[in-house]
Amino acid sequence: MVKKNAFYAQSGGVTAVINASACAVIETARKHKDKIGKVYAGRNGIVGALIEELIDTSKESAEAIAGLRHTPAGAFGSCRYKLKSLDTNRREYERLIEVFKAHNIGYFFYNGGGDSADTCFKISQLAETLGYPIQAIHVPKTVDNDLPITDCCPGFGSVAKYIAVSTLEASFDVRSMCKTSTKVFVIEVMGRHAGWIAAAGGLLVTHAIPVVILFPEIVFNQEKFIAHVEAKVKKSGYCIIVVSEGCHYENGQYLAEQGTHDAFGHAQLGGAAPVVANMLKEALGYKFHWAVADYLQRSARHIASKTDVKQAYELGKAAVELALKGRNAVMPTIERISDVPYKYKIGVADLKDVANVEKFMPRSFISKDGFGITEKCRRYLIPLIQGEDYPPYADGLPDYVTLKNIGIPKKLKPFKIT
Amino acid sequence: MVKKNAFYAQSGGVTAVINASACAVIETARKHKDKIGKVYAGRNGIVGALIEELIDTSKESAEAIAGLRHTPAGAFGSCRYKLKSLDTNRREYERLIEVFKAHNIGYFFYNGGGDSADTCFKISQLAETLGYPIQAIHVPKTVDNDLPITDCCPGFGSVAKYIAVSTLEASFDVRSMCKTSTKVFVIEVMGRHAGWIAAAGGLLVTHAIPVVILFPEIVFNQEKFIAHVEAKVKKSGYCIIVVSEGCHYENGQYLAEQGTHDAFGHAQLGGAAPVVANMLKEALGYKFHWAVADYLQRSARHIASKTDVKQAYELGKAAVELALKGRNAVMPTIERISDVPYKYKIGVADLKDVANVEKFMPRSFISKDGFGITEKCRRYLIPLIQGEDYPPYADGLPDYVTLKNIGIPKKLKPFKIT
Repeated sequence: MVKKNAFYAQSGGVTAVINASACAVIETARKHKDKIGKVYAGRNGIVGALIEELIDTSKESAEAIAGLRHTPAGAFGSCRYKLKSLDTNRREYERLIEVFKAHNIGYFFYNGGGDSADTCFKISQLAETLGYPIQAIHVPKTVDNDLPITDCCPGFGSVAKYIAVSTLEASFDVRSMCKTSTKVFVIEVMGRHAGWIAAAGGLLVTHAIPVVILFPEIVFNQEKFIAHVEAKVKKSGYCIIVVSEGCHYENGQYLAEQGTHDAFGHAQLGGAAPVVANMLKEALGYKFHWAVADYLQRSARHIASKTDVKQAYELGKAAVELALKGRNAVMPTIERISDVPYKYKIGVADLKDVANVEKFMPRSFISKDGFGITEKCRRYLIPLIQGEDYPPYADGLPDYVTLKNIGIPKKLKPFKIT
Repeated sequence: MVKKNAFYAQSGGVTAVINASACAVIETARKHKDKIGKVYAGRNGIVGALIEELIDTSKESAEAIAGLRHTPAGAFGSCRYKLKSLDTNRREYERLIEVFKAHNIGYFFYNGGGDSADTCFKISQLAETLGYPIQAIHVPKTVDNDLPITDCCPGFGSVAKYIAVSTLEASFDVRSMCKTSTKVFVIEVMGRHAGWIAAAGGLLVTHAIPVVILFPEIVFNQEKFIAHVEAKVKKSGYCIIVVSEGCHYENGQYLAEQGTHDAFGHAQLGGAAPVVANMLKEALGYKFHWAVADYLQRSARHIASKTDVKQAYELGKAAVELALKGRNAVMPTIERISDVPYKYKIGVADLKDVANVEKFMPRSFISKDGFGITEKCRRYLIPLIQGEDYPPYADGLPDYVTLKNIGIPKKLKPFKIT
């Protein structure tokens, strides 16, 4: 077996633990220097491969690589760049293979969600067709938790923990103030299509917090929603609303799209949270507060789930081990064995079954009224937020790592991305 | 000395550490049972005293009271209820004295900001006039850090730490994505008049993060702001904007007040963050993301500053000790001795000097261009965010305490608050 180099890239929206997978890929590859040469990383994801901007991770110390385990976001840069279909843009796929060939790359580790699983799959296919076989392994990552087959996705457990912890804290705040002030608090969370993150708000019922969740899977019904909130406020004095950014009306229009305009007639981009808050104010007169967590939720490494960090690392490690076993076009997965005690093992999925399939919340995970989660969902979620994995601190701030990210010399002609 | 009971109340917006002060007041009082009888707490702050809803804290176990140290928000309920001046509403002050008299209360510990310092002061004055002397001690609390005399206010250090940590994490996220996606990230923080919280965003410069801060103390200049952001994006590829909710134009209009209306012509309440984000999008075309931390920031006990928790406890303890020494109409303070190493001692301020005075960011703490902080400010802030003080966790969530809050029988006629 001729020793080949490896290529690793981060794709799409980053997470609090994607670097833990990167750490695992690099550390595991370093342990197998007899079989894997250098690990190159794509500067800004797959774009780096296209324009031949490869980072030489061997220039980073063992300490810096180990630091990735506790550092959020994408240490090498990620990108929102979806390769088009093979038919419409075959030249991009061919270019990738050319770059891999030029740098003796035989392993392709792609760390991302559904789109990148698809890209990864296509590359493995085309590489074979072009006579330059690449072992393409997908490393799962997505805060949305919407990949199929795997029980959960690295990145999700930490967002779920962040949302559950933050919403619990804000609930205590509102509960303190509701007698004379704020009665409803609305927090907007990520999840355009799948409501997994919003579901995390449902974990607060054990603390007797009145929570109403608005899922993207449930068509928004304003009348029912307002009645539901009113009942909770009447009973408890306050109510917490967790609204998914993907919450929408029957015609598909998002709550966030209210056709609002500013004083100058410019279209105004808002969030779903202020829309929901104003809706309640108008209908019920309640004083409100609202928050939009946005990037804070997916980058919150300071409150990452220990289970999530562990799994992100294990899946990165498993990806390299699968490559060493000669596997191609696969993705390591989490296979749950039991909820209590939580037990799981690492499995393998074929990329053809993963690519372009989205996993939504099953209806059995959402309460009958559509505004909460079921016990079944709670049993699913609880293990994923278990444990804390605090980063080290220096001068009051987390001691996150910034790599040197030294590029290697280019060998090919420049390539223009479309 | 006849043994009197004590009354404790939480006032205004709650914080991540106000319960640490409550914990200290109760624990210290319990250690001096020879001099202090029971500690009653106002249910929902001073409103509880007015309507004679007093909580008997002696019904809570030592364990529950100790748990307050790691529990955010107001365990007894707080309120936004400002007593009017003595002239316009003397009956409310008189009612308070009546309630105190009826329940043999000789100590009044009021945990709040500027308004409550004023109330506390007036009560001590009036009590004397009415021949029922009360020792009124103010325990400082405010996330806005705007109380005079004391070097800092409990609650602020933890918000500052939350904002610095969260913004650092989001910065790493944006840095990962900026090549093909988000170039500016706007986070809106609290602080209607004083920019102390926004200043915490300036701590990221040590991580080489390009940050632009919009303070309430600096009149907003759109042209200068846009040019400033553009320069940072050109240099670093991205820029983080920390905007204080109190940021305003020269005529006093807040950025958040854009006179926006929804499709139905209803006035739309938004935040400053989306306004700033849209402004940059229109001027420079940058893809943006924005977050509004709102209550998340002030309730974030999970990432509280250890220094802040310690000081909140120390000041609660000092308040009781001042009362035991016979002091009246005073507030314990933090007196800074040195920045590096950080040293401070507990001092005392007369309430007449504290009431209704707001402390803004000194101009020397804001950089010349108005968009950042100076080294002097950094030296002030750094000690306040030092150390982590993690709460215990159960089942993946912080194990925060909810008290029993058992009321005592009323002795007086009902009182209608205005």
